[in-house]
Amino acid sequence: MRILIVNPNTTLSMTEKAAAAARAVAGPNTEIIARTSKSGPASIEGHYDGAIALPGVLTEIRDGEAAGANAAVIACFDDTGLEAARALARIPVVGLCESAVATAAMLAQRFTVVTTLERSRVLIENLVIRYGMSARTKVRAADIPVLQLEDKASPALAKLRCEIELALVEDGAEAIVLGCAGMADLARALQAEYGVPVIDGVSAAVKQAEALVSQGLTTSKRGSYAPPLSKSYSGLMSALAPISA
Amino acid sequence: MRILIVNPNTTLSMTEKAAAAARAVAGPNTEIIARTSKSGPASIEGHYDGAIALPGVLTEIRDGEAAGANAAVIACFDDTGLEAARALARIPVVGLCESAVATAAMLAQRFTVVTTLERSRVLIENLVIRYGMSARTKVRAADIPVLQLEDKASPALAKLRCEIELALVEDGAEAIVLGCAGMADLARALQAEYGVPVIDGVSAAVKQAEALVSQGLTTSKRGSYAPPLSKSYSGLMSALAPISA
Amino acid sequence: MRILIVNPNTTLSMTEKAAAAARAVAGPNTEIIARTSKSGPASIEGHYDGAIALPGVLTEIRDGEAAGANAAVIACFDDTGLEAARALARIPVVGLCESAVATAAMLAQRFTVVTTLERSRVLIENLVIRYGMSARTKVRAADIPVLQLEDKASPALAKLRCEIELALVEDGAEAIVLGCAGMADLARALQAEYGVPVIDGVSAAVKQAEALVSQGLTTSKRGSYAPPLSKSYSGLMSALAPISA
Amino acid sequence: MRILIVNPNTTLSMTEKAAAAARAVAGPNTEIIARTSKSGPASIEGHYDGAIALPGVLTEIRDGEAAGANAAVIACFDDTGLEAARALARIPVVGLCESAVATAAMLAQRFTVVTTLERSRVLIENLVIRYGMSARTKVRAADIPVLQLEDKASPALAKLRCEIELALVEDGAEAIVLGCAGMADLARALQAEYGVPVIDGVSAAVKQAEALVSQGLTTSKRGSYAPPLSKSYSGLMSALAPISA
Amino acid sequence: MRILIVNPNTTLSMTEKAAAAARAVAGPNTEIIARTSKSGPASIEGHYDGAIALPGVLTEIRDGEAAGANAAVIACFDDTGLEAARALARIPVVGLCESAVATAAMLAQRFTVVTTLERSRVLIENLVIRYGMSARTKVRAADIPVLQLEDKASPALAKLRCEIELALVEDGAEAIVLGCAGMADLARALQAEYGVPVIDGVSAAVKQAEALVSQGLTTSKRGSYAPPLSKSYSGLMSALAPISA
Amino acid sequence: MRILIVNPNTTLSMTEKAAAAARAVAGPNTEIIARTSKSGPASIEGHYDGAIALPGVLTEIRDGEAAGANAAVIACFDDTGLEAARALARIPVVGLCESAVATAAMLAQRFTVVTTLERSRVLIENLVIRYGMSARTKVRAADIPVLQLEDKASPALAKLRCEIELALVEDGAEAIVLGCAGMADLARALQAEYGVPVIDGVSAAVKQAEALVSQGLTTSKRGSYAPPLSKSYSGLMSALAPISA
Repeated sequence: MRILIVNPNTTLSMTEKAAAAARAVAGPNTEIIARTSKSGPASIEGHYDGAIALPGVLTEIRDGEAAGANAAVIACFDDTGLEAARALARIPVVGLCESAVATAAMLAQRFTVVTTLERSRVLIENLVIRYGMSARTKVRAADIPVLQLEDKASPALAKLRCEIELALVEDGAEAIVLGCAGMADLARALQAEYGVPVIDGVSAAVKQAEALVSQGLTTSKRGSYAPPLSKSYSGLMSALAPISA
Repeated sequence: MRILIVNPNTTLSMTEKAAAAARAVAGPNTEIIARTSKSGPASIEGHYDGAIALPGVLTEIRDGEAAGANAAVIACFDDTGLEAARALARIPVVGLCESAVATAAMLAQRFTVVTTLERSRVLIENLVIRYGMSARTKVRAADIPVLQLEDKASPALAKLRCEIELALVEDGAEAIVLGCAGMADLARALQAEYGVPVIDGVSAAVKQAEALVSQGLTTSKRGSYAPPLSKSYSGLMSALAPISA
Repeated sequence: MRILIVNPNTTLSMTEKAAAAARAVAGPNTEIIARTSKSGPASIEGHYDGAIALPGVLTEIRDGEAAGANAAVIACFDDTGLEAARALARIPVVGLCESAVATAAMLAQRFTVVTTLERSRVLIENLVIRYGMSARTKVRAADIPVLQLEDKASPALAKLRCEIELALVEDGAEAIVLGCAGMADLARALQAEYGVPVIDGVSAAVKQAEALVSQGLTTSKRGSYAPPLSKSYSGLMSALAPISA
Repeated sequence: MRILIVNPNTTLSMTEKAAAAARAVAGPNTEIIARTSKSGPASIEGHYDGAIALPGVLTEIRDGEAAGANAAVIACFDDTGLEAARALARIPVVGLCESAVATAAMLAQRFTVVTTLERSRVLIENLVIRYGMSARTKVRAADIPVLQLEDKASPALAKLRCEIELALVEDGAEAIVLGCAGMADLARALQAEYGVPVIDGVSAAVKQAEALVSQGLTTSKRGSYAPPLSKSYSGLMSALAPISA
Repeated sequence: MRILIVNPNTTLSMTEKAAAAARAVAGPNTEIIARTSKSGPASIEGHYDGAIALPGVLTEIRDGEAAGANAAVIACFDDTGLEAARALARIPVVGLCESAVATAAMLAQRFTVVTTLERSRVLIENLVIRYGMSARTKVRAADIPVLQLEDKASPALAKLRCEIELALVEDGAEAIVLGCAGMADLARALQAEYGVPVIDGVSAAVKQAEALVSQGLTTSKRGSYAPPLSKSYSGLMSALAPISA
Repeated sequence: MRILIVNPNTTLSMTEKAAAAARAVAGPNTEIIARTSKSGPASIEGHYDGAIALPGVLTEIRDGEAAGANAAVIACFDDTGLEAARALARIPVVGLCESAVATAAMLAQRFTVVTTLERSRVLIENLVIRYGMSARTKVRAADIPVLQLEDKASPALAKLRCEIELALVEDGAEAIVLGCAGMADLARALQAEYGVPVIDGVSAAVKQAEALVSQGLTTSKRGSYAPPLSKSYSGLMSALAPISA
């Protein structure tokens, strides 16, 4: 089984961290293929970055499926381009936020997502509402620029720990979800420290992707995710035109 | 007051139709500036088309604001790129679906959106949920490819009338919302025919844009729509990198 | 275009303030006709005052429509009698709360309404739920009797500023909605002071009324807002009996 | 224990029918005092009638409490003036719709309200949403003018039975709620006929009123239902001014 | 009328306290029959205790109905086994939480449930969501083991008062619901002390049970609560096999 | 990795079918240990059967964890005892309904669960609401007694196919979830026949269990699922008393 991890951020070190987290949980017969988007922002912080990242993400999904991937993970907690990717691909495509909250919901009744910036907090709150988990989930921002997570000397970890502690005391959180792919290397240590489940979205998503493939399930092509219709695409986007099904 | 209409579909005849609808309702001091996206699909039908349309839409928003527009309308009923555009721009940006359902809600307790294809139906249902109107709104698809609306000889109007009639009988609809920018020229006649309010999204959105400008209101730059942070953008998207605030 | 502003409070100075706010945003071809209810409480503070204000409000709506108004605004943030007025009139009728939250939702993802008294806070929370905005909106009361807003020497403004500051810090508010018609004169200055959109309900409602009229839209007479049936009305209310359609 | 039944419709035969239903279920120590509003519409059909009925209802509530009633029932399924009456009175005030759906919810997971006119259907749907029961309740209108229920020779019962049968087959209804005070005399026979619980709002509300009094509970005067503040009331409504607490 | 009170906790002193509360509010013709479950935990604290209590509760419901009870109350605020009991019995069965929140909702717009342990808090929050009251209700835990309520010398009352005071100040509670059957003896005194309605679940449930019986209503046997089908039950549970209807 | 499958129905052939489905999707290093409850109903059809099944299910969970299972699946689509099992165990415990709808949600926007009996339909609808999926999911009953699924000669499959076809046409279903563990052997063939994803709950749950174990995640013991407190259990249930943590 080959699982494609697409990093919508164009920063290679984040891809490597996500790939390591993926490999740490993948099954013995799973090959992890990690790709960094070639087109878009160095890090995704808010709605604009997320929109501009889409063509790069979708190119990797299209090429990865053509190259034989059995499922794909979009490795950004904003679930960047998830619905468009599902419309494009026949293989299953999973997102980090969707996977992580579904995972947390099997371990805890109430949990808190800790993300990076305030601008991402409401975006993730809106995803949580869409995924039907708003009665069970709170979202906090730790005021950490995404790329600061790549820097061991930064105060990012201290800020993150502070918000986790507030989540336990003020939110009644029974589990913690790390709300950024760049936090994938921190989950195990934080779980040991705080004694509650700490869920990393990359790990959760890889296991969901494996689960779907093992069950012989692929994205529904009836209704919402019907394949793109053949039509002309103009300008920069002409290379992304769907080809006739 | 200058209001920018951005057509995310790259089809010029749709832009012209939207511009005509906009001018028909605009105030005496409002200048309508209509732009067709230069990059993306000829018509937006589903999630993939919508994602690929984003760089083209955002380019027009950025350039239009720089050229002095006071507000912008994204002229596709899927509200393509609405949140990213609000993060990018300081001027108000409004969408068709959001404007149309807010408008319908002031005239009727229950109403039905009639859109084009089944793949757009669920997408619009999800927008309606996000806009808080799901208890009041049903969404129907009339099985009309978007560009068929540009062809007077097509069966599009007959199909649309059929769904409106079902909405009145089966949904208890008290008003009808036309769920595609390409239907903008049909609202007045259908309203006269059926004796209930028929709302066109382009018209509704232009008036919302005027309303915001008249009140001296601009997009909040605190939280969700904070300006994009300065950072490197790679590949095709490098031209869309945000510049330092 | 003639827009009727009905003040459900029988206090003339509030009507004048609302009329001034209305005229400041109205289009060049809009005539603002402001009427003070002749029957009911001096100020509306809670459910009982609101109920007793209804005959006075509905009388003005009926008479205003007969006199040629093209739309009506009910100038109390509790949206006093809004649904009854829509059943009565064919012209569009808009409320302050409904208009203001629809307006805020186009500028910000999360916002806070600051109103006067605790008894009005839950009433407005319930309106916000009905308008589908509860996931995005918080409501705060500043402990200001309504008529204190008419007195420049009162501490009302200081209390209001205090709650706005709490909304920004504790609620993550991205915009502020002023939750009383008597605050209409304060919006511009508070917006300049706090750097976030500050929405006044009177201004918002006038622009919604203009928008509806410009689009040729009137209240649906199918279903919820069907005209009152001809029947006898007894006692004090006999003057308000509907006449046969 | 004295329970006041206020009929917001000014039709005496409806009051008598409600009083009979009330007495049939009241406890041995309960005195039922039935009052017909002296001011307002002969029957309440839609939002406008409901608004105009309020002063008459509130007058009876005020006078009934002063005369020693221990609780009050507002005998219209629209729960006309319920929140204003709670603000006015210290004694408990209950509504038919609120009582009936709370009652049905203790006997069945899914149930259907059958009401009179389409214009009342959405109004009741909105009450059901407010009472938190929308996931469990459907509302149907049988196209029966309210006063037709007073006429034994009318087709009202046949229409009502037709909708009950549709509710059982199409809605999966496990119980039926009769959605008009004028149907109070029909519940027992319909229950026997259909073999599912059939709830009459008058009966349900009387038992809720008794329940509250027996528990020594009165309307909260903290927050939403704080007593009306002393202030001047103008015009026709001056007789309804609250007196200083 | 005979009302069966089943205490799912196997602690006799709790049964006696519940019976006393029941008798204090019961009508003159109501006989209260209190039974302590013979099988299960001494006190119900959390999901596991609640599950293990079910066979004991259902045995008492079955036997009580056979012995002629007209309705049953399950005297634990977790509404332990409520849905199974309704499927088993034809007589009405009511729960404490469902009855108490329905009662509070007739007296106040916003209220707070104060329960014992944190593990019960989320369980009750989930009940409140199911009963449709989540927009109006907050739930607090006072960190009181259930059996501590049986000990007059314990700090339980002090802890409970502390949470009530926080509910009034922080939650804007307009009424208080006591969230444990073991608090039934405290309601009157706390109501007098705090000046807001204080609802005891046992009292509320007894009055709901009486109300249903007085109206001639029984549990719907159509759909969700259809009688258990005749089939073999194995092992310890063989004594609980349903007998053919 | 050892995954325990507990069949809450005491029918061995259902256990064998579930075990076969589990083994068909399990990873190469996963051992499936299937246990049939020794105490309870032959099949679970409705709330009463589900309640009586709990002691048997919880005994198997307790014993299975003690014997070294790494995770447990409760193999009934009603998620019988799921919350109690999570409170009891430290290993992850997953349910069929929760797993299946989470799985379907990654492949389709809208989907339909097809279950056995009407009495189970509303029960599953309520689970779907609790899992946050009610806006995306419909539930249908095919009128199949559970044990009829064990009989190849029965009309069960024909009835099931009929409801699937209605789901596709009337519900706009993009995927189908089989709503009974006894349907586990039918998923692959139905998926091939209808060309949409068909999800079996047993398979979905086994993969969720594996996913949780692979990530090193266990049930949160903070809050809702804190371990049962040590206390006396009476009567038949004394063998199930929790032992001191």
